[in-house]
Amino acid sequence: MTVITLTTDFGSGDHEAGVLKGVIWQIAPDVKIADLSHDISPHDIREAAILLNRAAPFFPDGTVHVVVVDPGVGTSRRGIAARIGRQFYVGPDNGLVTLLLEKMEVSSESTQFVHLDQSEFWLPEVTHVFHGRDIFAPVAAHLANRIPLSSLGSAISDPLRLILPKPYRIPGGWHGQVIHIDHFGNLSTNLNANQLKSTKEVIIKINQEKIVGLVSTFGESPPGTLIALLDSSDSLAISVVNGNAAQLLNANIDDPLEVFTDS
Amino acid sequence: MTVITLTTDFGSGDHEAGVLKGVIWQIAPDVKIADLSHDISPHDIREAAILLNRAAPFFPDGTVHVVVVDPGVGTSRRGIAARIGRQFYVGPDNGLVTLLLEKMEVSSESTQFVHLDQSEFWLPEVTHVFHGRDIFAPVAAHLANRIPLSSLGSAISDPLRLILPKPYRIPGGWHGQVIHIDHFGNLSTNLNANQLKSTKEVIIKINQEKIVGLVSTFGESPPGTLIALLDSSDSLAISVVNGNAAQLLNANIDDPLEVFTDS
Amino acid sequence: MTVITLTTDFGSGDHEAGVLKGVIWQIAPDVKIADLSHDISPHDIREAAILLNRAAPFFPDGTVHVVVVDPGVGTSRRGIAARIGRQFYVGPDNGLVTLLLEKMEVSSESTQFVHLDQSEFWLPEVTHVFHGRDIFAPVAAHLANRIPLSSLGSAISDPLRLILPKPYRIPGGWHGQVIHIDHFGNLSTNLNANQLKSTKEVIIKINQEKIVGLVSTFGESPPGTLIALLDSSDSLAISVVNGNAAQLLNANIDDPLEVFTDS
Repeated sequence: MTVITLTTDFGSGDHEAGVLKGVIWQIAPDVKIADLSHDISPHDIREAAILLNRAAPFFPDGTVHVVVVDPGVGTSRRGIAARIGRQFYVGPDNGLVTLLLEKMEVSSESTQFVHLDQSEFWLPEVTHVFHGRDIFAPVAAHLANRIPLSSLGSAISDPLRLILPKPYRIPGGWHGQVIHIDHFGNLSTNLNANQLKSTKEVIIKINQEKIVGLVSTFGESPPGTLIALLDSSDSLAISVVNGNAAQLLNANIDDPLEVFTDS
Repeated sequence: MTVITLTTDFGSGDHEAGVLKGVIWQIAPDVKIADLSHDISPHDIREAAILLNRAAPFFPDGTVHVVVVDPGVGTSRRGIAARIGRQFYVGPDNGLVTLLLEKMEVSSESTQFVHLDQSEFWLPEVTHVFHGRDIFAPVAAHLANRIPLSSLGSAISDPLRLILPKPYRIPGGWHGQVIHIDHFGNLSTNLNANQLKSTKEVIIKINQEKIVGLVSTFGESPPGTLIALLDSSDSLAISVVNGNAAQLLNANIDDPLEVFTDS
Repeated sequence: MTVITLTTDFGSGDHEAGVLKGVIWQIAPDVKIADLSHDISPHDIREAAILLNRAAPFFPDGTVHVVVVDPGVGTSRRGIAARIGRQFYVGPDNGLVTLLLEKMEVSSESTQFVHLDQSEFWLPEVTHVFHGRDIFAPVAAHLANRIPLSSLGSAISDPLRLILPKPYRIPGGWHGQVIHIDHFGNLSTNLNANQLKSTKEVIIKINQEKIVGLVSTFGESPPGTLIALLDSSDSLAISVVNGNAAQLLNANIDDPLEVFTDS
């Protein structure tokens, strides 16, 4: 009763997302399939990496995550499968697992990577332009069917990693960046509880605005208030109560912010 | 083989909607999950209440409906679970079940509400900002696993209700309002067959336009015609054949209309 | 363990798409349901026909495809069910299966059509405006339950077909048209490998632009390059590497293109 999750930039109006399910169920008819998102911004590997990192911990052991954000499809970029702790990843070797991998290293959990080079686990006909359907979906289904990772390809130890913006110290605090903007316009950052000594005395500066102190949830302040809080992934987030912080601050991914905690 | 449905305002581009499925399948691996919608307008409780009321009757007995449109998350608003007739609801106590409840009262079916105060049925770590994941999804999975409602929390009898616009009599007819605008631009109203004596002689006035008589379906009139009909939820609806009534009439939720049936 | 797929123009914000699942699981509780798309452009039968034709080959034998793009609902247009090769279709008789049918005729596979006129396989109450819920979803569930096609309605042999633009010869090559624009802005055409003698010497003219030669995948050329290639459905497609060809060329469905292969 394995779960396979799907994350792509295919959108919801075309045939590609649905086709993955057909391919999987032909090989592994009993598997459960969960769409995580098909609305990753086109070719935005970082956005998919963040989503995967936030969703994966809540799925059962043995879950296989298929991620197809794959601008390099058909070029020399490798297709890979991996065991990352107690779950699996199948997709292109373009950095999509960077954040999951960093987390495993912090917690000293083991990982295992293979380069998908065993074509007997793929569709009979493989195009140059849709490895999600032709390679990754069938490989994920075979993994769900308990084919060992080592049968699917040759072991590798150098999966590609994204270079992601890291927070750094500034006098009296930290410099960070906006790394995700959600559907509500909440700004999620690469700062978290570790960089915040005190949730009361913190001062945050972002896009000419200043926020004093953190709140513990949205509804603590009146509608329209610009607030800072720890979001459900434990990241420092900037929000507007019942409103849209991205619009109010005219904010974008990568915008800088400064957090002062030592004053 | 219970069904759990999901209705949220999370959108389809973030991790939140998918995460609910992971949490549910960790606790209840055999349950079937149906996404009703993740595109409820942000914080629009009424929109979700209408959707739930229209969808629920077509699901099997025992279905558990999880609805997470929850601007008050982490504040003093309660989390609740309920048996409503032969189905279940899990989510915030903010009026989402108002319409289902009114329907049960009309048909004299019983309901049972609990305040979710038993944390052994939640995730081990509960944030202030994502009770959908931390409380409602796990509670729904336990309900699907046949944990009795009464084990999940203390009985309550005062679930919060929305105050929804009601139709009222005017000389010669009824005053109503637009309560929903669908993907095609069809305007659904709070009037229904009960307020319409005759489907032929009715006159409808909305946004400076006048419609005479009801049709039984879209294709009865030529493309572009402004028509009125009973929609699939038995509500009076205003449509344009192969077109978009909301655009043509520049209509919005809450716009008034008048229906004259006595002339 | 039959699969039922759903393709509609209902969008993702309303109750209609989810309701189909409730109806199906009431009748066939073990069936797996795959959403192909609920974002077909409103009333766009051709778009749905193309999606269905591209997705169906990747689903298991016995799959039942429910397609509800149905501007003629409630009029004299028939509801139909069909066996098309080893899979099934349920929906309106408005041309949605045209492309699947043409493919069967090329491969000499058999088809069987019935007019849905046996109301014992429908919901007890049938509206004039939502046959997807009231007729097609229940019929699909009964098919999944192994009710024979011939029990669901009277045999017919004249399913309606769309008249689709066909490529034709011009001096030195072929005239074709754009038939689909996907989420990435790739332009898919009604030309395919059969019309292209040589993938190196081909010259393509579209919307004042000229493309020389085909590439085998996106990443072969630098970002921003206008390219032509065979897409995952083996159609000639016009793309921009890491960009949006529809925007660059200001292209629309039905735009003509010329392909010269004989020079």
